[in-house]
Amino acid sequence: MKASFIFLIVAARPILALWPIPRSLQIGDSLVKLSPDFQIQHSILHPPQDLLDAISRTTERLWSDKLQRLVVDRGESDSRKLLNAPSLTGLSLSLVTTVGPVESIKEEATKEITTRIEGYSLSVPNGGVATIVANSTLGLFRGLTTFEQLWYDDSTGVTYAYQAPVTIVNDSPAYPYRGFMLDTARNFFPVVDIKRTLDAMSMVKMSQFHWHAVDSQSFPLSIPGFPELAQKGAYSSQEIYSDSDIQDIVNYAGAEIDTPGHTAIISTSHPEHIACPQATPWQTFANEPPAGQLRLASSSTTRFTANVISSIAKTLPSKMFSTGGDELNVNCYLQDAQTQADLMSSGMTLEQALDAFTQMTHGALRTIDKTPVVWEEMALEHQVALSNSTIVMVWISSRNAAAVAAKVLRLIHAPSDYFYLDCGAGEWIGGAIGNSWCDPFKTWQKAYSFDPLANLTAAEVPFVLGGQQLLWAEQSSPENLDSIVWPRAAASAEVFWTGSTLPDGSRPSSTSALPRLHDLRYRMVQRGIRAIALQPHWCALRNGACDF
Amino acid sequence: MKASFIFLIVAARPILALWPIPRSLQIGDSLVKLSPDFQIQHSILHPPQDLLDAISRTTERLWSDKLQRLVVDRGESDSRKLLNAPSLTGLSLSLVTTVGPVESIKEEATKEITTRIEGYSLSVPNGGVATIVANSTLGLFRGLTTFEQLWYDDSTGVTYAYQAPVTIVNDSPAYPYRGFMLDTARNFFPVVDIKRTLDAMSMVKMSQFHWHAVDSQSFPLSIPGFPELAQKGAYSSQEIYSDSDIQDIVNYAGAEIDTPGHTAIISTSHPEHIACPQATPWQTFANEPPAGQLRLASSSTTRFTANVISSIAKTLPSKMFSTGGDELNVNCYLQDAQTQADLMSSGMTLEQALDAFTQMTHGALRTIDKTPVVWEEMALEHQVALSNSTIVMVWISSRNAAAVAAKVLRLIHAPSDYFYLDCGAGEWIGGAIGNSWCDPFKTWQKAYSFDPLANLTAAEVPFVLGGQQLLWAEQSSPENLDSIVWPRAAASAEVFWTGSTLPDGSRPSSTSALPRLHDLRYRMVQRGIRAIALQPHWCALRNGACDF
Repeated sequence: MKASFIFLIVAARPILALWPIPRSLQIGDSLVKLSPDFQIQHSILHPPQDLLDAISRTTERLWSDKLQRLVVDRGESDSRKLLNAPSLTGLSLSLVTTVGPVESIKEEATKEITTRIEGYSLSVPNGGVATIVANSTLGLFRGLTTFEQLWYDDSTGVTYAYQAPVTIVNDSPAYPYRGFMLDTARNFFPVVDIKRTLDAMSMVKMSQFHWHAVDSQSFPLSIPGFPELAQKGAYSSQEIYSDSDIQDIVNYAGAEIDTPGHTAIISTSHPEHIACPQATPWQTFANEPPAGQLRLASSSTTRFTANVISSIAKTLPSKMFSTGGDELNVNCYLQDAQTQADLMSSGMTLEQALDAFTQMTHGALRTIDKTPVVWEEMALEHQVALSNSTIVMVWISSRNAAAVAAKVLRLIHAPSDYFYLDCGAGEWIGGAIGNSWCDPFKTWQKAYSFDPLANLTAAEVPFVLGGQQLLWAEQSSPENLDSIVWPRAAASAEVFWTGSTLPDGSRPSSTSALPRLHDLRYRMVQRGIRAIALQPHWCALRNGACDF
Repeated sequence: MKASFIFLIVAARPILALWPIPRSLQIGDSLVKLSPDFQIQHSILHPPQDLLDAISRTTERLWSDKLQRLVVDRGESDSRKLLNAPSLTGLSLSLVTTVGPVESIKEEATKEITTRIEGYSLSVPNGGVATIVANSTLGLFRGLTTFEQLWYDDSTGVTYAYQAPVTIVNDSPAYPYRGFMLDTARNFFPVVDIKRTLDAMSMVKMSQFHWHAVDSQSFPLSIPGFPELAQKGAYSSQEIYSDSDIQDIVNYAGAEIDTPGHTAIISTSHPEHIACPQATPWQTFANEPPAGQLRLASSSTTRFTANVISSIAKTLPSKMFSTGGDELNVNCYLQDAQTQADLMSSGMTLEQALDAFTQMTHGALRTIDKTPVVWEEMALEHQVALSNSTIVMVWISSRNAAAVAAKVLRLIHAPSDYFYLDCGAGEWIGGAIGNSWCDPFKTWQKAYSFDPLANLTAAEVPFVLGGQQLLWAEQSSPENLDSIVWPRAAASAEVFWTGSTLPDGSRPSSTSALPRLHDLRYRMVQRGIRAIALQPHWCALRNGACDF
């Protein structure tokens, strides 16, 4: 190794722009430029098409990002040095072991959440050929994503990295579930917006899109065998996710059909299945308008629900499927004569009926080898027997995670007090002047400060699968999707990839993370993702100058 | 008048979508469709080109808006009735008096703020020809803007109004100043974004764009005779407003060069004029980084400042020009040897020097017939003799308006506690986790509840020129411009146009305003303005169903 290679831990050079920051990282301070002949090669027999596609995308982005360094001179002083800088001529991808046929990225990414292999090693030498080595095509894909974030353009159009050599050994996520949830029911989001969101998620190595597809207000999802649900429940015929739209979206997505609450809109096609549809005053029957819940005590409704869930779930590659279960309103059922009659005839309490309803929907999912996911009330507030394989999303408060783990159930952190991206815009209900229940705004710094293991015993730690930031869309629409989500949602992506220790051994802090998040934000903008400014541009160019 | 014309006050038909709502309004419940031969005609000899342009734009929008009614059936039930509905064949514009040559819209819109004529009368009969009558071309323009908001498309492509006849008599603004302020210095906004913003402002009859063009962080404004300010102070050579850009923007704009604070960036081209440039820790020298203020005690700096202000102001049509004057940091001057020497040699106190500095810059403005505008500190916190013509922007608190009026100075409401659009996103300074000084988020309902005359005596009322919502851009960029501003900023546009009484005699309330604001928002989206959803689409289609 040449004497000019000075290895430094990342804390001394905080502006290296990798997000999430790898769990192991060594960098130098040399410039290396991308050779005009640069190519990505691989040594994989029968490579899956989606790996080849990923290689093409990376190759294109290396030249099209055209991001300038976030320093005052935007890299102008690099230009002189670049004249004599060594060139990187290629990147070579290889798999460590290839027993049997090579699986595609999609196959790996849709395996059971705890069995996916995402790790990779990356070496970018000071000239010559870089390498990515992994145990799966998904690992190679993660490595490509890291590699893309190393490159800048100077004003003469030279593409270069400035902290070579870069050595990353066995970077793999601290938690397998690193997600983002989008609600497409309160307001509709066209497929193009969702796909752009998936691209942005992929930039920060998120592993799971949680598609809260339908809710009380609209049913935009086309479900095989139940076309009437969307035909009568979507906002318009143009605002329906078709079968092909869905397949386009769900390669990395788990979907949710929230039940038995949040289902009012089903009354437009199946009034027989909905209790208290649009009952007024809505406050008495639901947490938000319109009221309406599936008649969980009806065997006919239970069968219908299980069939709907099963019908859509079996078309989706993801192992996870959420049946919801949040914000059940008891009064709605008390006032519903049909439900009361059903309970009377079966001799069940409402809680017993909810348990039977859930056994039916979850049983239908397990029959097709899917893992049920529920919101925390199903584990903490109701008397429902959840199988040990069930995954629980903790949303009401981060403090409730420990209670879920204590029930020997796996959990996903989705706490409203850290991760709800919609909070802070004020109450949207008509006639309100005040602020909303989940105010204030959850800043990226707040999300970044989240501790996934707070209040957990060592025995409970393995139950944490990861976490996600969420966009409930009462006050969101395609117009503000990017700006309300990015770069904020990158915060949890790093929390759950990198974990509690940075590669230099220090604890994560928003102060040291800020310059990297700036870099990610500007790179997102270069790629057409409308991520917002975190600070004045003046500050983004001057690391530390705008700190307290 | 036919018996089928049922006149109703607007409160009984709250979903007529005019924003701001006219001060006088009568509507019916008849459908009238736009004739395929519909034309806008006028009886004006030598019409100014900008009126003809406005007529063309309105004509185009009537057909291109293609907004569907915000009702559950999106107007489908109107389609049958439209078959036999009468047609509007034209709109006729006329001026009441035409003594002398007809002035252009721009000439009227850039007159001294209290002398502009904006009133108009509009009649849309149930078939035949509609009329707009006004006393100025600006009045005709306001009438055209109202007329545009009456029209919807049904699913068969018929364009129609559904509350004809519409009669508006002498609708004119309660306050002449109805503004929006954009900060283009913390982050840069391309001209195309500003022009789209001006279009949106025009939709809600705002009268004034307050261009906070430069600040501590960047100087994007090309100023005749001082090209070095932008050359060295802009973020890049692509992020400068050229002379022609400026002329494109300022037809309806007053600009601001904030002085003597908020000028750090001038040190890049004129270090001799700036005290404590980028001094650290910045907290000691400025409210936000970077520190740096004009050396107000230096006669050379004072002349330089007056020359810069005069040079740009004389190229702008607006009568108003702001010299800023907010957040002056005394410590910066105490620590600046040059300023202390200047004060010593002149024998002045800092306050006396500030007064002399202000007399010079304001004198330069008055020489070229401009009205100086200042932030409230200049009237309330400093010993500066402001001429009676000076206009004061009240920003620190709405409670300070009365103190300004008590000083016999005209004021513009720009209070941070109601109208700051940037508040509520958390602290942007690095290392912060908490929320910011001006949290929480200022909802549209909060802005809409603003009382321009609160705490004022009858004698002080005439000093209120109007008000504006403001976007400080520390955490904003082109990516979220529309979504953070619209439709929220429409709230103050109605407060200051319509005043304290709706046409039915009631007081404005956000509950009754909501359906009209929904309508405006959806129409903005149709025109390419990325205004955000206020509620789930389900609620927007059902007036009142999502109220408390």
